[in-house]
Amino acid sequence: MPSDVVTMDKVVALTKRRGFIFPSSEIYGGIGSTYDFAHYGVLLKTNVKNEWWRSMLQERDDMVALDSAILQHPRTWEASGHLAGFTDPLVDCRACKMRFRADHLDQLACGRKPSKHPGETPECDLTEAREFNLMFETTMGPVKDAGATVYLRPETAQGIFLNFKNVLQTARKKPPFGIAQVGKSFRNEITPGNFIFRTREFEQMEMEFFVPPDQAQQWYEYWQKHRYDWYVELGLRPDHLRLRPHEADELSHYSSGTADIEYLFPIGWSELEGIANRGQFDLTQHATHSGEKLEYFDQGSGERYVPAVIEPAAGADRATLAFLVDAYDEEDVPTERGGSPDSEGSAGGARGDTRTVLKLHPRLAPVKVAVLPLVRKDGQPEVAQEIVDGLRRRMQVEYDEGGSIGKRYRRQDEIGTPYCVTVDHQTLEDRTVTVRDRDSLAQDRVAIDELPERLAARLQAPWTSPKLA
Amino acid sequence: MPSDVVTMDKVVALTKRRGFIFPSSEIYGGIGSTYDFAHYGVLLKTNVKNEWWRSMLQERDDMVALDSAILQHPRTWEASGHLAGFTDPLVDCRACKMRFRADHLDQLACGRKPSKHPGETPECDLTEAREFNLMFETTMGPVKDAGATVYLRPETAQGIFLNFKNVLQTARKKPPFGIAQVGKSFRNEITPGNFIFRTREFEQMEMEFFVPPDQAQQWYEYWQKHRYDWYVELGLRPDHLRLRPHEADELSHYSSGTADIEYLFPIGWSELEGIANRGQFDLTQHATHSGEKLEYFDQGSGERYVPAVIEPAAGADRATLAFLVDAYDEEDVPTERGGSPDSEGSAGGARGDTRTVLKLHPRLAPVKVAVLPLVRKDGQPEVAQEIVDGLRRRMQVEYDEGGSIGKRYRRQDEIGTPYCVTVDHQTLEDRTVTVRDRDSLAQDRVAIDELPERLAARLQAPWTSPKLA
Repeated sequence: MPSDVVTMDKVVALTKRRGFIFPSSEIYGGIGSTYDFAHYGVLLKTNVKNEWWRSMLQERDDMVALDSAILQHPRTWEASGHLAGFTDPLVDCRACKMRFRADHLDQLACGRKPSKHPGETPECDLTEAREFNLMFETTMGPVKDAGATVYLRPETAQGIFLNFKNVLQTARKKPPFGIAQVGKSFRNEITPGNFIFRTREFEQMEMEFFVPPDQAQQWYEYWQKHRYDWYVELGLRPDHLRLRPHEADELSHYSSGTADIEYLFPIGWSELEGIANRGQFDLTQHATHSGEKLEYFDQGSGERYVPAVIEPAAGADRATLAFLVDAYDEEDVPTERGGSPDSEGSAGGARGDTRTVLKLHPRLAPVKVAVLPLVRKDGQPEVAQEIVDGLRRRMQVEYDEGGSIGKRYRRQDEIGTPYCVTVDHQTLEDRTVTVRDRDSLAQDRVAIDELPERLAARLQAPWTSPKLA
Repeated sequence: MPSDVVTMDKVVALTKRRGFIFPSSEIYGGIGSTYDFAHYGVLLKTNVKNEWWRSMLQERDDMVALDSAILQHPRTWEASGHLAGFTDPLVDCRACKMRFRADHLDQLACGRKPSKHPGETPECDLTEAREFNLMFETTMGPVKDAGATVYLRPETAQGIFLNFKNVLQTARKKPPFGIAQVGKSFRNEITPGNFIFRTREFEQMEMEFFVPPDQAQQWYEYWQKHRYDWYVELGLRPDHLRLRPHEADELSHYSSGTADIEYLFPIGWSELEGIANRGQFDLTQHATHSGEKLEYFDQGSGERYVPAVIEPAAGADRATLAFLVDAYDEEDVPTERGGSPDSEGSAGGARGDTRTVLKLHPRLAPVKVAVLPLVRKDGQPEVAQEIVDGLRRRMQVEYDEGGSIGKRYRRQDEIGTPYCVTVDHQTLEDRTVTVRDRDSLAQDRVAIDELPERLAARLQAPWTSPKLA
């Protein structure tokens, strides 16, 4: 692992300490690999999802949105192949009573001799592998035994195919066009883990792009580039990001091409998003199982065809984790002074300081601006509050009056706040404040009246990670 | 029902026809009372949720966000009382094989004689009532019989109580403060229905406000008013909205006061949101069941106490339905001309026209602006596309070049688009366009360069429903 990749422990510790992500149900001892997003985590992940919507929907003419239900008709999963094939092979050990994924035995520890892999010790007594379906099962309606078994969707994609016909009839789109969706999916993974990288409950950002079959390859290439560029535009370092085409033996039976966008996580190169050329498989399957005609009829040419599908499928939690990992930094910085050089709250001295900082893209940062009165008197808190009121309709703002100014800057660094506005005694004289930049530590003096426009403009400006400098 | 309340059928028809809401899994015959939000429905509901977040979180200092998992530790539901008490009493009829809610027998139809209520005909053979738990049950982990039963949360609130301690330790808040959350919940209702009013899978907007116990009553009153005002500010007509305090015999055992905000739906006055004074019940229950201290220690006063809780619990789907119902209108309007009086595309004549229009608050409207070239030639589409490109980074925009200008205005009326920008031949001469107002039908000429600022300002201006005029 290169030395510029932070350890997972440090990211987990920061996100717990500062209120981004908590282990779920912690007061009851937790529940296997499930996490709750706390304040800053909600704001960060919401920004990630909003940027996805902006790029995939708002800035395009060829896309519509969808939010389909988690509980779908069970025949969906017959048609998609999930009921028959969405399984992992499991083996039990009769000696240590543990259960293992048969295809990962060489990476797992024996229950009795944790230094060994299952099967490596004579005591191991493994059963034959059995297939275990990863879908969560439940019962809808009051009667348990009346064939009312339904499944928590293991992916959002199928909800899109189920709505293809309704969308075609109402949305006035013709191929090439896409249907985009963000929402929760559930997989009863045997071995979840690595923080929010693999969890049983997770959130997807999926899009199905319907194209004339002879355009499938060109759109497959288009979406690989478009999605890769999205991560780079939002600040991920290109040398920690790669596009890896699947080998022929990795491909699903329905896919004529799949490429993963991988990020260099602390656990190594791992999938952020998959872009697949799914051909006509999905619409054909659902047409067969439902008896509906799932095809496009071109009134101009008189042509009728089943569109091919290109699917960029991203994980919202994984993307959030990648942005956190990529932004995390620890560095030595000069001791910072608050306000103007002669102000009463300056920390003084030339001593250095160590800070932990999240160098997040300003559009992703949970809080855009912190407003800090240098001292908690002399009318400074009142002016600071007035500034907060003028900004918060447009952006997420935080007011903080507790502790030394240096300590407050460090707090904002840890949550990735790009700008700190400090009210000092000069503010009371000329209605200017200092605006401190998270990355350069530069402090500009700005008139209060110009603050909203100046900050809004900076937040929308193109941005490059200072880690690339 | 007053004559100014639209029928549910009309709302259902519009939302299906125009692509707001589709029955879920429709190609497989649907799945009981489940719905999928289509393009305009996603945009509308997202705006409703964003306005809730803005009012509850972004514009306040005393609130933090949370997004807890749907799958929580099962002991949560022991502590909350849901495992024992979240039940409906059911009776079976041995004759017609139907199942009924025992407490609604007088409103339900007998399976054999639909004109009669169950129990009213001699053929009815009803069992004793049995309690049926409304939580969806599933199994986590690979082994079904290993006590791994978990539940889909029936409310988001409990996830907030489980995180109270973690939030207190990280968020630097002291009572009074709140934790806000938006997310899916699931209830295996016996009798879902009335479109998206009561569904088994639904989305909540809940907030738990933690206060010193002696301030509970004042905050209970504060939140009733605050939440009621939110609906009014977003355009619901006050005479179709009421605050109804529960009678003593309606109160839950833990509540010393509950008030419902009710809206006059086509099905009559029905609950939009409940505001409850839950006292210390929740934190005390979870403290007892978990062994954790769920209390606040005031370092200043040395005081230690279990906060009381005020809960405003709203339904995102119900709120969306209320805004749709309230905005729906059919009216006779003069025939509209596109562009300047002498332009080539005007529909001409003084004939009247009937339109269906959603008079949604501009902040809730799915699409903010439609950009329409009067004709599909003479460079008009290119200029229109240039205008779209200049607007769409800031707001949801739609480009439409298909059909007569009058027909395109009607389409935008039906989805509630507040402004239509029309490019005509004068545009090519002086770079001005007409901006047509959805409600007044007034058309102003505006310079293209001023358009983004002018529209952004109008969209943020205070707004009153034209139905109140």
